[in-house]
Amino acid sequence: EIVSSLIPNNKIEDGLAGVNVLITAGPTREAIDPVRFLSNHSSGKMGYAIAKAASQAGANVTLVSGPVSLQTPTDVNRVDVSSASDMHKAVMSHVSDCDIFIGCAAVADYRPVNVGEQKIKKDNNELTLTFTKNPDILADVAKLDHAPFTVGFAAETQNVRDYALKKLKAKRLNMIAANDVSNKDIGFDSDKNALSVFWNNGEEHLAIADKEQLAFSLIELITKKYKSN
Amino acid sequence: EIVSSLIPNNKIEDGLAGVNVLITAGPTREAIDPVRFLSNHSSGKMGYAIAKAASQAGANVTLVSGPVSLQTPTDVNRVDVSSASDMHKAVMSHVSDCDIFIGCAAVADYRPVNVGEQKIKKDNNELTLTFTKNPDILADVAKLDHAPFTVGFAAETQNVRDYALKKLKAKRLNMIAANDVSNKDIGFDSDKNALSVFWNNGEEHLAIADKEQLAFSLIELITKKYKSN
Repeated sequence: EIVSSLIPNNKIEDGLAGVNVLITAGPTREAIDPVRFLSNHSSGKMGYAIAKAASQAGANVTLVSGPVSLQTPTDVNRVDVSSASDMHKAVMSHVSDCDIFIGCAAVADYRPVNVGEQKIKKDNNELTLTFTKNPDILADVAKLDHAPFTVGFAAETQNVRDYALKKLKAKRLNMIAANDVSNKDIGFDSDKNALSVFWNNGEEHLAIADKEQLAFSLIELITKKYKSN
Repeated sequence: EIVSSLIPNNKIEDGLAGVNVLITAGPTREAIDPVRFLSNHSSGKMGYAIAKAASQAGANVTLVSGPVSLQTPTDVNRVDVSSASDMHKAVMSHVSDCDIFIGCAAVADYRPVNVGEQKIKKDNNELTLTFTKNPDILADVAKLDHAPFTVGFAAETQNVRDYALKKLKAKRLNMIAANDVSNKDIGFDSDKNALSVFWNNGEEHLAIADKEQLAFSLIELITKKYKSN
């Protein structure tokens, strides 16, 4: 009893001791000109909570982060990026020695084809912008020759299960965690979330909880599946 | 000497005692779908500093604010909005009893014509979005029958003076404060700024300083011009 009382009680089992975990978090910003950008409502809270949980499980954690207003968790190596292209580059330069990749960032799917060097003047009543697809970080990681155990996220507003299963298969992920961002009690700006996690022939539903708590449950699940992989 | 030591030394003269000041601050966000939006790099720091300075000068201050991560200054009535249309509505509902209007927000000039009710799926390699002009809050305030003393801002990346003077005239403003956001030492993400202030047949240049300090200088200048108006 004396020994156990010395173990910090917020420490989850060292299931990921010595394991290298690469995590992306937050939104990306796609510049339209020096002033304007396209972004999304990701707060980064879920990804940061996952980084914290993985670190507390003993992993060496690198967190590639879009622009957020969050503190870096203790012992986590944070790499700041802005655009999806920047994030893709940062991930690719850190992925070679990574064992588990968790793509939690809400990466912008599209970026403007032309980025104005100067602020676009509003001379016209209408403005038409053409966007082109950004690199698909998750898919690019999962198709690497020595791909890490790859976990994706799906933030959807409808048909959450269908889209998640489709994404799991299409991108050849090991796992995907899906949430319904149309539910305002959970998701982007909230401190709470709920996740449906899918893998090949299996699924588990993590009920609504604080993002910090949920991150611990998710890391436990990832650890189990990673070790049996 | 005893009396003067009782006056808080961070209090500027009560030049705006009893004056109603309406200020906008921060960026706006223009929804593309429930997940994505168009925004800009305004941090809201300058507008919040102006609200603080006006309040300390004795004004009754209402601050219509876009999404920012800033504390509301003491004694300031804050109204939170997201889109330019929301901001326009909030300003119009507070402008009737306002004596001075300071439009410091970086209002998005355009919003998407069609807002997706569900998250847009990335089935296509290219995406074309059409944007339409947002209401012009500054111009709409300045052209009111009993318009307040109206102060605009111009954030430019080139030809700052020309654009500012053009905007002063075109929108019939009483004053305009211009800054060069292409200079990374000042402007959006910085705690410092420098402003060139123009009015009919006059101008004054406020040198680079902390945004809080600069806000006090600007409020002093606005007070002088408002009173001689």
